[in-house]
Amino acid sequence: MRSPITGYLERILEQTAHVDAGEPADYIPELAAADPDRAAVALCTVNGTVYAAGDADDEFSIQSLAKPFAYALALEDRGIEAVLEQVGVEPTGESFNELSLDPGTGRPSNPMINAGAIVTHTLIDETEQPADDRVRRLLSELAQRPIAIDEDLAASELATGSRNLGLAYLMHASGALKADPGAAVEGYVRDCSALVTTRDLALMAATIANGGTQPNTGRHLMGRRTVTHLLSVMATCGMYDAAGNWLASVGIPAKSGVGGGIIGVLPGQLGVAVFSPRLDEHGNSVRGVEMMRLLSEDLDLHLMTASRPARSALREIRTSTIEGHTVTVYVLQGDLVLSSIESLVHDLLEHPPATDVVVFDIARVDDMLPVALRTLSQSAAGLVDDGLRVIVVDPDDRLADLDTGHDRPIERWSRERLDRADEGNGQSR
Amino acid sequence: MRSPITGYLERILEQTAHVDAGEPADYIPELAAADPDRAAVALCTVNGTVYAAGDADDEFSIQSLAKPFAYALALEDRGIEAVLEQVGVEPTGESFNELSLDPGTGRPSNPMINAGAIVTHTLIDETEQPADDRVRRLLSELAQRPIAIDEDLAASELATGSRNLGLAYLMHASGALKADPGAAVEGYVRDCSALVTTRDLALMAATIANGGTQPNTGRHLMGRRTVTHLLSVMATCGMYDAAGNWLASVGIPAKSGVGGGIIGVLPGQLGVAVFSPRLDEHGNSVRGVEMMRLLSEDLDLHLMTASRPARSALREIRTSTIEGHTVTVYVLQGDLVLSSIESLVHDLLEHPPATDVVVFDIARVDDMLPVALRTLSQSAAGLVDDGLRVIVVDPDDRLADLDTGHDRPIERWSRERLDRADEGNGQSR
Amino acid sequence: MRSPITGYLERILEQTAHVDAGEPADYIPELAAADPDRAAVALCTVNGTVYAAGDADDEFSIQSLAKPFAYALALEDRGIEAVLEQVGVEPTGESFNELSLDPGTGRPSNPMINAGAIVTHTLIDETEQPADDRVRRLLSELAQRPIAIDEDLAASELATGSRNLGLAYLMHASGALKADPGAAVEGYVRDCSALVTTRDLALMAATIANGGTQPNTGRHLMGRRTVTHLLSVMATCGMYDAAGNWLASVGIPAKSGVGGGIIGVLPGQLGVAVFSPRLDEHGNSVRGVEMMRLLSEDLDLHLMTASRPARSALREIRTSTIEGHTVTVYVLQGDLVLSSIESLVHDLLEHPPATDVVVFDIARVDDMLPVALRTLSQSAAGLVDDGLRVIVVDPDDRLADLDTGHDRPIERWSRERLDRADEGNGQSR
Amino acid sequence: MRSPITGYLERILEQTAHVDAGEPADYIPELAAADPDRAAVALCTVNGTVYAAGDADDEFSIQSLAKPFAYALALEDRGIEAVLEQVGVEPTGESFNELSLDPGTGRPSNPMINAGAIVTHTLIDETEQPADDRVRRLLSELAQRPIAIDEDLAASELATGSRNLGLAYLMHASGALKADPGAAVEGYVRDCSALVTTRDLALMAATIANGGTQPNTGRHLMGRRTVTHLLSVMATCGMYDAAGNWLASVGIPAKSGVGGGIIGVLPGQLGVAVFSPRLDEHGNSVRGVEMMRLLSEDLDLHLMTASRPARSALREIRTSTIEGHTVTVYVLQGDLVLSSIESLVHDLLEHPPATDVVVFDIARVDDMLPVALRTLSQSAAGLVDDGLRVIVVDPDDRLADLDTGHDRPIERWSRERLDRADEGNGQSR
Repeated sequence: MRSPITGYLERILEQTAHVDAGEPADYIPELAAADPDRAAVALCTVNGTVYAAGDADDEFSIQSLAKPFAYALALEDRGIEAVLEQVGVEPTGESFNELSLDPGTGRPSNPMINAGAIVTHTLIDETEQPADDRVRRLLSELAQRPIAIDEDLAASELATGSRNLGLAYLMHASGALKADPGAAVEGYVRDCSALVTTRDLALMAATIANGGTQPNTGRHLMGRRTVTHLLSVMATCGMYDAAGNWLASVGIPAKSGVGGGIIGVLPGQLGVAVFSPRLDEHGNSVRGVEMMRLLSEDLDLHLMTASRPARSALREIRTSTIEGHTVTVYVLQGDLVLSSIESLVHDLLEHPPATDVVVFDIARVDDMLPVALRTLSQSAAGLVDDGLRVIVVDPDDRLADLDTGHDRPIERWSRERLDRADEGNGQSR
Repeated sequence: MRSPITGYLERILEQTAHVDAGEPADYIPELAAADPDRAAVALCTVNGTVYAAGDADDEFSIQSLAKPFAYALALEDRGIEAVLEQVGVEPTGESFNELSLDPGTGRPSNPMINAGAIVTHTLIDETEQPADDRVRRLLSELAQRPIAIDEDLAASELATGSRNLGLAYLMHASGALKADPGAAVEGYVRDCSALVTTRDLALMAATIANGGTQPNTGRHLMGRRTVTHLLSVMATCGMYDAAGNWLASVGIPAKSGVGGGIIGVLPGQLGVAVFSPRLDEHGNSVRGVEMMRLLSEDLDLHLMTASRPARSALREIRTSTIEGHTVTVYVLQGDLVLSSIESLVHDLLEHPPATDVVVFDIARVDDMLPVALRTLSQSAAGLVDDGLRVIVVDPDDRLADLDTGHDRPIERWSRERLDRADEGNGQSR
Repeated sequence: MRSPITGYLERILEQTAHVDAGEPADYIPELAAADPDRAAVALCTVNGTVYAAGDADDEFSIQSLAKPFAYALALEDRGIEAVLEQVGVEPTGESFNELSLDPGTGRPSNPMINAGAIVTHTLIDETEQPADDRVRRLLSELAQRPIAIDEDLAASELATGSRNLGLAYLMHASGALKADPGAAVEGYVRDCSALVTTRDLALMAATIANGGTQPNTGRHLMGRRTVTHLLSVMATCGMYDAAGNWLASVGIPAKSGVGGGIIGVLPGQLGVAVFSPRLDEHGNSVRGVEMMRLLSEDLDLHLMTASRPARSALREIRTSTIEGHTVTVYVLQGDLVLSSIESLVHDLLEHPPATDVVVFDIARVDDMLPVALRTLSQSAAGLVDDGLRVIVVDPDDRLADLDTGHDRPIERWSRERLDRADEGNGQSR
Repeated sequence: MRSPITGYLERILEQTAHVDAGEPADYIPELAAADPDRAAVALCTVNGTVYAAGDADDEFSIQSLAKPFAYALALEDRGIEAVLEQVGVEPTGESFNELSLDPGTGRPSNPMINAGAIVTHTLIDETEQPADDRVRRLLSELAQRPIAIDEDLAASELATGSRNLGLAYLMHASGALKADPGAAVEGYVRDCSALVTTRDLALMAATIANGGTQPNTGRHLMGRRTVTHLLSVMATCGMYDAAGNWLASVGIPAKSGVGGGIIGVLPGQLGVAVFSPRLDEHGNSVRGVEMMRLLSEDLDLHLMTASRPARSALREIRTSTIEGHTVTVYVLQGDLVLSSIESLVHDLLEHPPATDVVVFDIARVDDMLPVALRTLSQSAAGLVDDGLRVIVVDPDDRLADLDTGHDRPIERWSRERLDRADEGNGQSR
């Protein structure tokens, strides 16, 4: 059987095959020489399997798609607050102020533009390795293969890099860039000269979607706070296009590069990558943007899509007979966030248990937010206060801190004990 | 038993009780007279129950919190594209261009600022009712109670409304506002003069979280596309504060008003509302913002939080004996989005079923995205192509369009038939 | 004999007859109906004779050419400092910020743009007469004939005046405009609706050139400080064009109006006026600007032209015999400014008089700046200090305050006495 | 006798002795080490004598005061139009866009800011000498002494010159700077490192006032068009302060430097220079600005001052008897500009000569604008047309091209012939 997901991606390529507007970047020969008709799309879920179509194994320069990953390194090394002092997180609007430096401080607006990325590069800790080597190593870890630098491209970029040097010197003058401007630009340019494939990019994006853990190797490459922050910045600053329009129409944290690539991330779900060298006037791949629009629409990737209201955490409420007593058993499941635990609380208040014994079975629960844990504990304690006997089935000991402050403690049973004790005769509500 | 959620909200009030910076709006006597020490917080999940603490039943003027709802009406009446032609969706940045009108066209930047809201108000269809009555009726439907206009406040706002009149006349001069400027401002001011409580606002926000359906009355007040678009605009333009900073630090679509209220929405989960009249220099409630930060952190409301990767849609794969044949049964559950259905596809490709008969049981599936439906259908058809016998248990007939293009069709069984036929002896994988 | 100046002006019209780019203002019917081929040029020296060519007696609406005169009234009524507090004097640059209001205070940038002129109008004292009547009366005094308002035009301007109303309301909101916005705009529009001819405008400009005194009636219509300030503002803010370019290329304080007129002033020399209804994108008359360029070049009107270095104030130094003594006679002439009196001082220091008696003859001197008067007095006193006898011929008693602080005073002789006493035998140096 | 002008300048120093606000520039040690209490003022008329008070012979770095002179060199070498293509002439306003580069082209706004001066430096022809040597040579010619470079200062400026390098690289990136950015900045910095005295600066300013001719050496260092253009640019762009405010309040083309110097020019009259190291937030010398204000007010230097309307060019009109005929003799004097020749034309038209013979005596005329020459010629020809006999006394043959197109030519007499022929009996009108 052939993968229907691959088939779907092939259709994306077909549906956008007519999009041939724009021109490849031409400020250096290496980019101008790109075959403008190459195109690829790849997708990788948090399970780590990559589905791809088109020229997904062709290499091209990562360019600005290196920015999110260099930023992640800086965030990990310095912490979010320290990085925020040096680089802002505001979108730059419709290229009004082309330099995108804060008029007061000279601080660059965000890390997804050149000025911000140059400063960001210098915030990567170099104690053990040069920053550009660290970026390359991270990209290799993300892609599960050694990523190389295109040295000719890097040399060309440097030779024509007056604009980046100008930005760097201006930032140095204002104090926004502490490091040597020339070295900062060279390092930044090397970051951008990494050679990647669309397949690589999908894996990289999927790692962000997976909270920073490479789904196949299981390596924790970025922390959870780093990923949340990075995604926020990609959502507002990732596309050179107007920020509000991108979020409203495509609705996915993304980043584009003048090499023709775009990556997108749906947190907790999947990463996507597209590639087509022809650029619009903002420097975004024209066909790439169109592919992203189709993917967002077909795959319902829009961050704001409200089609999946959280299911009840209450799998079942049943009465049963245990050790001769009639008991009420509340079976919880899934992830316990506030909106799911709320259904339990709501039920306890609206329909107080008519039995003297209550069992909370959380054996099937996956993740628990601290607020949900606390809310559940307090609910249990409240019932003890009301004179009930409370039993929890909590194999992972997640209610360990449960303390009622009473003589009569909450009892902890194993799942097996509950199953053995359960005499049936009950009924689900 | 007392609700631990209410307890949690009371703690939010306690934790922010020391925040007394800022001053209530004072440009009109009605706002200046507000007791600056009043404060409230309320929360409402998509289940419709409101939890509240503090002065949650005190009325105050809705002010700019009316903007998202008036915008929703305009979107419903005219369609997103038509509204976008008149009002943009770009954040205005750090109040650089204080008028926030596009320098070329005079089009207001977004509907969450005054200029944009004035134009938006005039886009509401008035065939059956004046626009301000329609806004008031929508607010009443959302709050499940009749919402009134504070006529004295409206009169005061109009008497001091030079700035709004100035914006309206300028937009009229540039063609950005087609309607009479005086009437547009009056209607807009009436929208802002509705009297609401923090409890009302939580219900209103929860309706947005619930995809536009009021959770208690079940009335469909806004369409799904309207809600997705509205949430995107709230995410980037809702707080007068810098857009990127809000999304990075709080990460929740929100809107504030100079009356001291702020609403926030976590799509699919819940709506929150806070109230405290003291404002910062941007016009956001100081303590309100602090409460929102705490809520976001405690309740993990950040849009980008990647803590809940989608669970496998594959509940179980087991072999069993049915009608004497060994069969493989794939039991699917939950919402089928692409990233969940992908786990089934992946398994089918990596571990092709070793039996001649395959059963897909989707009786426990909740929502299915079209792409997931299509992918499942194609997978089933692929197996038929490979010569297998395929049975689906699909009580809601969601695979109705399934067509293999083969003589041997996919069989459809009911859940009961499967249960009866299942001879056991199988084992889960 | 026919006037060669008139002939010169006719050649200006011929030389620009081919310039037919641009379109008349068309936002109201009254302006759109203008015959675009009408054209005129007029010139008036500080002697008060008007030379004109073309349709110089056709009436058209004064439009923004009323702004300098309304500004002059406000300056006279309130003083420069008080007016500066309400309206700035900065050019607005290349229409970057189209409203030209100070982002901080809302104060309009200068009085030559609509926002500034609306505020300026409200600064005219209305104790005895409404401001628009006062403007009309001033225009009539300047033109030596009764100037009328085109009431139809004023009505049309008001009916389409959303932009001016917008500006006025915004300025009212920020406190930059204290008066009622509607009344301010109406008054301002009436100022702009005065009907004038090119001949009128040349007389008006010549009055400014003449230091505020109408050259024919001798009436002092504006004070000297008002005129100096007004000319400065016209030099940088008068043309909607870029300020620096106008000063560098034409170099003359000027003002244009959308009626097609432009006035220019060379301080102390003459005023010019041109008329042609076709406007460029800035709202300046295209052919009018070309005529101004030719006039500036041909007539050497550029403010910075350094072709006329000040002549020596020393008409003659001669020795002569008076009352038997050999004396040195210094004959001064012309206007004594510092750079002219300096030549006397320089001579006295370099070539101290070899005689015991010195005569300063200032009978032929026209104007004396206070600094020149003081310098001359001090020079005379210095010579007395050195033991010389000093005689001044000062029929207008301009050295009245002369005080040497010595017993031996400076003597004052009449011209006749000097002539009678002069025994000749001297020689000029 | 002591010079009263020097005394006046000493009083300027006394009157501003209390002004001690501001701080010397401190970005490099060489500037920070300046004695903040040093102060000087100097004045030089177009006659070339320098009057000075205070520390007028102390050397300090010329800094931005080099800009006008480097600009003059570029204008002379390339022509105004070619230079305008590379560097604009617009004031930059209140430091809104701190880089002052045209957002579209990257062209710097004007040559008086760093960006513009860097480009200007590269426009100086280097065929025979490096540009910085040429600037130094020009400064030496202006000051009549060899001007040296402070090499330590230049080295310090380069070591801290990130901002200038940033500007240069950005302009190179946009194509606005064709030359090598590093070399351009180095050359520009050397221009700024010239060591000058206040006395030097007064001579430099006086040369501009004198139309480009050094008043003492008589060397023509800048052409007339260059000077007119340069003065226009200094008038709007010379002070870092707001352009309109400077022109309105001081009204003199000027330039300031962070070394503490300011120069000012009154065209045709004099140059002034002041020095005091303490700077305001714009980088202008605080006490220097105050001295300039006093000088402008006391010496009536304001460009727009209308106190000296042009005197009549008509010195005398008399009737006399020549060769037995009654003749009318018009004696002209002074500079003939249009506004002066107009008084003759006016008289000829209003009071046509009652005699058959007319004499125009222009022997006492100084300068004649072409338009005045033409107008006079045409007037003479008009009289010939009317049948009169016309005699001109024109020792310098300025009416050489006079051609009546008649048989009866205009006669040319020498002054002596007129004097001999004049039989008196006439009377002045």
